[in-house]
Formats: sequence, C-alpha cells, structure tokens
Amino acid sequence: MAAAVRESVSARALERFRDALGADGVVSDRDALREFRDPYAYPSWEEHTASAMVMPRSVEQVQAVVRIAGECGVSLWTFSQGRNYGYGGPAPRVGGSVLVNLRGLDRILEINEELAYALVEPGVRFFDLYEAIGQAGYRLWPSIPDLGWGSIVGNTLDHGVGFTPLGDHPTRQCGMEVVLADGDVLRTGMGGVSGSRAWQTAKRGFGPSLDSLFMQSNFGIVTKMGVWLMPEPECYASCTVRVPREEDLAPLVDTVRSLLLLRIIENTPITYNMVLVAGAMSGVGREHWHEGEGAMTDQALARMADTSGVGWWIVRFALYGREELVDANYEICRAAFERIPGARVERRTYEGSKIRDRFGEPTAPPEPGYRDPVEALGVQSDRTQAGVPGLELLDSLSWDETGGHLDYSPIGNMIGEEALAQSRLLRRVCAEHGFDYAASLMMSPRSFINIVSLWFDLRDEAQVRNAYDFVRVLIKRCGPEGYAPYRTHLAFMDDAAELFDWGDHAQRRFLSKLKDALDPAGIMSPGKQGIWPQDMGPGTRH
Amino acid sequence: MAAAVRESVSARALERFRDALGADGVVSDRDALREFRDPYAYPSWEEHTASAMVMPRSVEQVQAVVRIAGECGVSLWTFSQGRNYGYGGPAPRVGGSVLVNLRGLDRILEINEELAYALVEPGVRFFDLYEAIGQAGYRLWPSIPDLGWGSIVGNTLDHGVGFTPLGDHPTRQCGMEVVLADGDVLRTGMGGVSGSRAWQTAKRGFGPSLDSLFMQSNFGIVTKMGVWLMPEPECYASCTVRVPREEDLAPLVDTVRSLLLLRIIENTPITYNMVLVAGAMSGVGREHWHEGEGAMTDQALARMADTSGVGWWIVRFALYGREELVDANYEICRAAFERIPGARVERRTYEGSKIRDRFGEPTAPPEPGYRDPVEALGVQSDRTQAGVPGLELLDSLSWDETGGHLDYSPIGNMIGEEALAQSRLLRRVCAEHGFDYAASLMMSPRSFINIVSLWFDLRDEAQVRNAYDFVRVLIKRCGPEGYAPYRTHLAFMDDAAELFDWGDHAQRRFLSKLKDALDPAGIMSPGKQGIWPQDMGPGTRH
Repeated sequence: MAAAVRESVSARALERFRDALGADGVVSDRDALREFRDPYAYPSWEEHTASAMVMPRSVEQVQAVVRIAGECGVSLWTFSQGRNYGYGGPAPRVGGSVLVNLRGLDRILEINEELAYALVEPGVRFFDLYEAIGQAGYRLWPSIPDLGWGSIVGNTLDHGVGFTPLGDHPTRQCGMEVVLADGDVLRTGMGGVSGSRAWQTAKRGFGPSLDSLFMQSNFGIVTKMGVWLMPEPECYASCTVRVPREEDLAPLVDTVRSLLLLRIIENTPITYNMVLVAGAMSGVGREHWHEGEGAMTDQALARMADTSGVGWWIVRFALYGREELVDANYEICRAAFERIPGARVERRTYEGSKIRDRFGEPTAPPEPGYRDPVEALGVQSDRTQAGVPGLELLDSLSWDETGGHLDYSPIGNMIGEEALAQSRLLRRVCAEHGFDYAASLMMSPRSFINIVSLWFDLRDEAQVRNAYDFVRVLIKRCGPEGYAPYRTHLAFMDDAAELFDWGDHAQRRFLSKLKDALDPAGIMSPGKQGIWPQDMGPGTRH
Repeated sequence: MAAAVRESVSARALERFRDALGADGVVSDRDALREFRDPYAYPSWEEHTASAMVMPRSVEQVQAVVRIAGECGVSLWTFSQGRNYGYGGPAPRVGGSVLVNLRGLDRILEINEELAYALVEPGVRFFDLYEAIGQAGYRLWPSIPDLGWGSIVGNTLDHGVGFTPLGDHPTRQCGMEVVLADGDVLRTGMGGVSGSRAWQTAKRGFGPSLDSLFMQSNFGIVTKMGVWLMPEPECYASCTVRVPREEDLAPLVDTVRSLLLLRIIENTPITYNMVLVAGAMSGVGREHWHEGEGAMTDQALARMADTSGVGWWIVRFALYGREELVDANYEICRAAFERIPGARVERRTYEGSKIRDRFGEPTAPPEPGYRDPVEALGVQSDRTQAGVPGLELLDSLSWDETGGHLDYSPIGNMIGEEALAQSRLLRRVCAEHGFDYAASLMMSPRSFINIVSLWFDLRDEAQVRNAYDFVRVLIKRCGPEGYAPYRTHLAFMDDAAELFDWGDHAQRRFLSKLKDALDPAGIMSPGKQGIWPQDMGPGTRH
C-alpha cells in the first residue's frame, strides 16, 4: 500500500479496534479526546487533533492495533503518558491520527537490587517505580526528570535527562521489546537469546545495537524497557553556585566542564538563569519584576538579579558517596567555583538512607505570595537529584498559573565563550520578539542542552500564536549558527529536521529509507521527528 | 540486482578499481594477498581468502569503490587495520571477496584538548593517536586495548573494550561519517548540521541515533569517527587483587560489582585466571606447568596457582584523580577485597604527568627463560590502564611463540555465583575437549565478557583444526545456558547469530530487512555478524 496521510479513522477500522480491544479500549468521542490535545495550544485550534484513541493493555493488543492499522490504512500516533507538555503532549503530528495510549501497559516486571535495574512497561511513571522500590525496601535510587508523572519509557525514548549519575536516560537504558509495523515483536541485545539473563545488564549483544533506533523515531512501539538504577549512596550533597553577572556564564561553564571531565561532579548539572528561577519559583507574577510591554529591560534584569537573590546564573549539581569523599569533592568544587569573582557556593548534605523519609511525601502547595526563589529551587533540586519524583514544577514553569510554555532547546558545546555567545544571541532574539529569556542549561562533560522556555498566557490567543510562531523563528534563526534542538514541538519537527542538511540532507534520506523498509504503509507516527515515508511529500504534510 | 555470493572478482571490476584508485591502490597478486589471510588459520586452508584488495586513500575513493562494487557485483569485505587476530584478522567472511583496506585513511583530523576528543580516520592506530597527543603536548589520555597496533575505529566498531574510565569504546564514540552501499555519505548526530561544532561533543542530535547501527554490522563503511579522551589525572593507581581458590571468583565478582556500581572503581577491571597469566606471561612453555596429554589436571592447576604466585584469579583495576581521593578510594577497595580470605591487594601509584616518561618508550623484549608472571602482567597493566599502547602481549597470548589463539567470549551477569557457574562450565567443557581454560573477564557494573583464549600450535594442522572446531562446540554447548559471545571468528558468525532465537529469530529478520533496504545487492561484507541479504540463503553461504 502506498503511504498517504489519512485524515480520520474509518468506521470499519474502529469496529475492528473494538473487536480486538473491547469497547472500553477504544475512544472516539470528540469531547473525551479533548484531554489528549496539545495542552498549550489555544482551545479552538484543531491542527493536532486525533480522530480516535486505542488503549491496548498487552503486547498482543499492541500487535493487533498495528496489524489493523496496516490493513485499514490508519495513521497511528503513540504516546506512553503524553506528559511532554512543552512539546505538544499526547497530540499527534498528523491531524486525524488514531492515538495509541500506552498508559494501560503499566507493569513493573522486575526490580533487581543486586544488579540495580528495573524492567518496565511504557505506562509506568517515575512515581510508580519510585513507589515500588520503596515498597520492596530496595536501597536503589532511580534517575528522574523534574516532573514525576511522565512515563519512564516515553521520557527515555525522547532522549530525556535526569539528575543522578545515571541522568543521561538513553545511556542508562538497557534492552527493549518493540512491536514493529508488521506486528512482529523484537527484543534487542541479549533479549534476543531465549535463555539469557543479561537482557537488562549488557547493553550490546552480537551484531549492531538497535535500541537507539527506536528513540525519537517512528520505527516501532516500545513495549518493555530496561532501566538502570543507582545504589543508595551513604551521603548526598545537593550543591548550588550563584554568580552575579551575565558574562560569568563563561567561567562557570568552563569550571563545570572541567569538574565533569575529571568526574568530580558525576550527575547532570543544570545552570538556570534568573528569569527561569525567579520567574517560575517566586510565586508572584511578571508584574512583580517588570511592568510594561516587551521583554524585561537590562535594568529590570539587573534589579531581578539583585533583589531575587538568584544572581544572573545559578548552577545546581550533586555529589554522592562516602561522606569523606563527598566532603573532599565538595572542597575541590568550592575552590574551583570561588575563582569566579562574586560566586556563592553552597551545599546541603543528607544521609542517603534518610532521603525517603525527608522528601518521600508530596509537599503541601506553597502559600500564596512571594517566596524566596532560591529556597524553592533548593527543595526541588534536593528531591530531584536524589530521584524523588514530584509535580511541584508543573504549574510554575511560566509566569503564573494561567501560563503555558513552549520549549526551544538547542545543543551547544561546553566551552564558556561559546555558551555565552549562544546565550546572548538567544536573549537578543527573544527580546526582539518581546519574549523574556528563561534558560536552563542541562550540562554534560562536552555539550549542553539549553532549554529556552517561552511563557505565555493560555487565555490570550494572540499570545499563544505568537509563542508558537516564535519557536519556528528561533529554529530557523539559530540554525545557521550551528544550533539544532534536541527535541521540538510537533508543529516544528520538520523545521528542526531541515537543519540537518549536511550532504544534501543525507540523514533525512537515510531515515526515509529505513522508514520505507520498516513501515512501508507509513502507519506508525508519520512525521515524528521529521521522518516520513519517501512518498509522503511535503504537499501531503500537515 | 539480486544478491548472490560472488566467488571472485572479475577482470573488468579490477580494471575499474585501478582506474579509480591507481595501480598501486589495487592488489590482486595471490602471494601479496597472503598477508591478509586469517593469521591463525593453517597455511593451506583457503576458506577465507580474498581475490583482491583495494586501498582507498580518501572518502571519495571509498565511494568509488562501493559504486564499482555495486555495478560489477563484487562482494567487499572492509577492515581498518585487520588486527583482530583471535577472530580472523583481515580475512573476509566470504571467500573470493575483495578486501577494502582502510589503512590509507590515516589522518587524525582534530584533537581538542579542552573538550577532550579526537576525530580520526579508520587507518589511525592506537599508537598514532597516543603519539600525536604527545607531540602536541596535550594532557589527555586515550583509552586503549591491550595491543596498540589496531585501528581505533575498527576496535570501536567491533564493540572493543579499553581500560580507562572511558573503556567502553562504543560509549566513548561520538559522531561518525559513513559511506553507504549506494555511495552516499552520511554524517551522524550533530554532524548532520552543516555549521555545528557539536559533532564530537553531543552523542545525539534530533531523531534516532544511528552510530550503533554501524557497529558489528555491514550497513556502511565508517570513514571518520569521534573518540572521547580523558584529562590526565593528577594521580593514578594501578591495583591488583589475587585470590587463592577457584570458588573465590564468586565473592570477587560481587565485590567488583559493588565497587563499580558505587563508582569507586571507574575503569574496566579484568579478572584473569592463572592459566591466562602464568601461561602467557611467564616466558616458559606449557611443559613447565604440565606434562602429558589433555587439559591440565586439578593437581597441575593447584601447583600453578601456588608456584606461579598468581593465585587462582587476579583482578586488575585502576583509580584516577586527586591523590587524596585515590588514596581514600584505594582504602575502600582494600577493605572490601580483604574480606575474601587469602586475598592479596596491592597497588602501584604514579603521578599522572610522569606516565609518558615512565612508559612512553617501547620496552625491550624480555630475556629468555622464566619470569615472574605477576610482575610481567603488572607492567602491562600499568601501561594499558594509563592509555600507553604497546605490543608486548602479541606473541605471548599462547603457550609459546609458535602458538596461535582463537577466542570464545560469552557475556555473563556480574553475580558471583553466576560467574562461577559459567566459569566452571567452561573449564569442564574445555577439559572434555583437551583444552586448558585461559580466561579474562572484562567487567562492567552489571555484566562481563569472559574471553576464553584457546591456544594451539600453529605448525600442527590437527591442533589448529581442533581449536577451530571447538569454538563452534562452545558456542552451541553454552547457548542453551543463555550465553552468547560478544564477538566471534568469521567462521562462526552464523552460529553465534543463531543463538539469538527469541521470537523465531526476530533479530535476524529485522537485520536482514535493514540489509535489504540499505544494501540490496549485498555488496558490503555479506555475512558479517550473521547478517545476510534475505535472498542469500544458507545454501549459498560459505
């Protein structure tokens, strides 16, 4: 069958889905489907709206869904929990697609304390694994992102980042089970050997490793995944460094790079700018910091740096291990960061075994009114870097609770001057378009991802449209500087993929060739990450 | 064109290769080709003999070779240096193939000291990069395997292992350039963005990561690769632990696992058994340890454990960093290992900046006669774990200099009892077939690769044949226990791939589908790792 974008699901396909999954496994009511729209799109927009949703509860039901889709020519769009809100949530790239909601595949199949791994299905949330580890009494810490309600599998497949020493989530993944477009099921790596016990312990088998092929792609539906955990450390120090001036980013980045390369810091540090921290965490609206139209002025920013206590930049990172080693490593970090004039280095130290008691219960919602943003960030950081999931950041990642956000997240090199140049460029382009520059740089030894969070009022269609349009501007404006994003919202996946132009778009040609081989009818999440079957030309794309 | 195994190269193809590469870029003389046979096959064997060899010196010439092969129906077999001696060296899987010798692509394109990476072509040897780093005066250490003459790219593509904290070579790889079967050239990850500076610093771009697809496969010819380096540490301690009895492997493995999971040990420990160390490093022949037919008896092994000073097992590992941290970590390790009765824990400590002076020059060949194998291993370990390449082990990895070796290298879990059970099984099966059990377990936090080295006299055809046959026996005998090898000799690639039987060989089906899509004529290294185009049936396979 030739690939073609399908506008909506046929009655026959719905009938067959119901036969396979039962009536309660299929949703086609438009109102019920509204929950699965792009959460930050303006309510009247219909661009990324699904025509139905199927909810398989087993691998066999996923296989059935895929086979029916192939036979009936249905475009599927898969999500695990659909909590990737800054990039479109559970909504499909192609309007009219049938959502494949994997929340029902929610089993934790194994937790192995000695070998420090878990085997989970895609419906398992960070909350669920944390809770299961606690119930079993295992002394293991998971790596988690800032919000705990997302799917472990979904986050990993989208190149997610967490904040323990296993914070590079694709790297701490080990072994997958995948349903392919023809309904076949594949187990990767040592999972291919029937009697092997090494599926979750050895990252490679015999032959090429396939796991990364199923991340940020549309080549299969992952139904099981191994995830490595870390043993609870004896001691844990959650550390921050604040620096007062914009240009301090350069020595800050160089210092973090050096400490990461030397493995003194072993987790994923984040450097936030003050707009992100003071704006998101202080519990007051934008008017507290700046009145009037347009982006915050230099004067307003200087005032915010000063009065919020954040400084221009604040980096958080953590140290783990024996107490004397944590102390020694902290002293090395302190001495290194204090070479930056005005730097304030601080830590809070915990016994590893006390973390669950200290942070395990959800915190009460904060009192209305102003609060110290550095303190609020501190609580969030202390939890997150110890693998304790929460939802505190959900409503705060914008100026106030009526806000939405879209993220533009370019990759850069961990060289101080390069990071500063990128940051100044982004602040300038944001200001030119009336946006404040709220930045979180997630750092690894050689590169970082700069998550630029664009905040807008969800109730104002013009503001929302403006933000959506501006993401495209950023992608196109920063591409020629060599910056490409590590993720992007549904609506801009083709724009991001377009930046990969080397060799007359050799990557796109290669990916289309794989897509045609693995999913000739193009039924699986067409357009995801800009990957389309070869005969779905731009004219047919939404 | 339908895929088919081609027995030899046509005169027309040779002519076209000469037109593209020049006369000195093509070798078809049978005598000259003998250097590129399986180095440990018996001289009269012709199974894995090439019919010609091409030596491109640029990416464009690699593209030309691939295009000509496609047009003329030539089976290619690519090697970088061809030094993977225990698995067949540069010889082709399919007899009559044309070798693509990449030694001429030998440029180190960049060494970046700040970001600690290099960009190399496939002809660059571990020796070359070490030398170039030294000449530039960069304070960087590469990760290397035991022998320094291999290709960095080739070793990485074959899932190679080294012995610094960046010792998992596929993981420390970042960014590739690949020539595809149709002559197209692809750059992976951020290499796809023309203006990006993050090709060697960010492991992932936008969309699925493709690099691992070109490891242990036949989907492309890698012509450039990024490789991460580590900053020279202030202090470096090379450590060993010896334990006296076979059953001590269980607590030894459990202790190493725990220290790796806690990141106290950060490099790749190897646990050798005494046969490997005493046999390979003591400078005397087998008759020194055991007279008579068949595998060494229990009595002979007990005598060897005692008189060689090796003990039954010896593990080597290293610590890196500030001196006080190395000291503290060593004390943690010492205390942990000394819980095993009879364990002897030792270290030699170096200043990082003195390593080049200490070990940089090749050592003189040893005097004939017996030498202390633990001391000999110590020198080798101290160099290797500091990234200083050598060739000392080349002639010693067998009972004497007329010896060859074949390796069988199953993967296992880092659980003491599992490792001991695997090891006992292997020793028993080896003994049943008259082979001594010489083992090196390369360890990571959750799994290990047990390299079982089968030693034989190259001059005795029956012995050589026996060893080759025995590899197949081991693969088949240990498969039902869940053990599959991470690499294997050319002759047994189909046997190893056959173990991946889950889902009625779903992995093989998937890989064949990719092969058909990417290389429909099957010109690129057909049969490598058991990957064939779908219509190259078993009957056509050699």
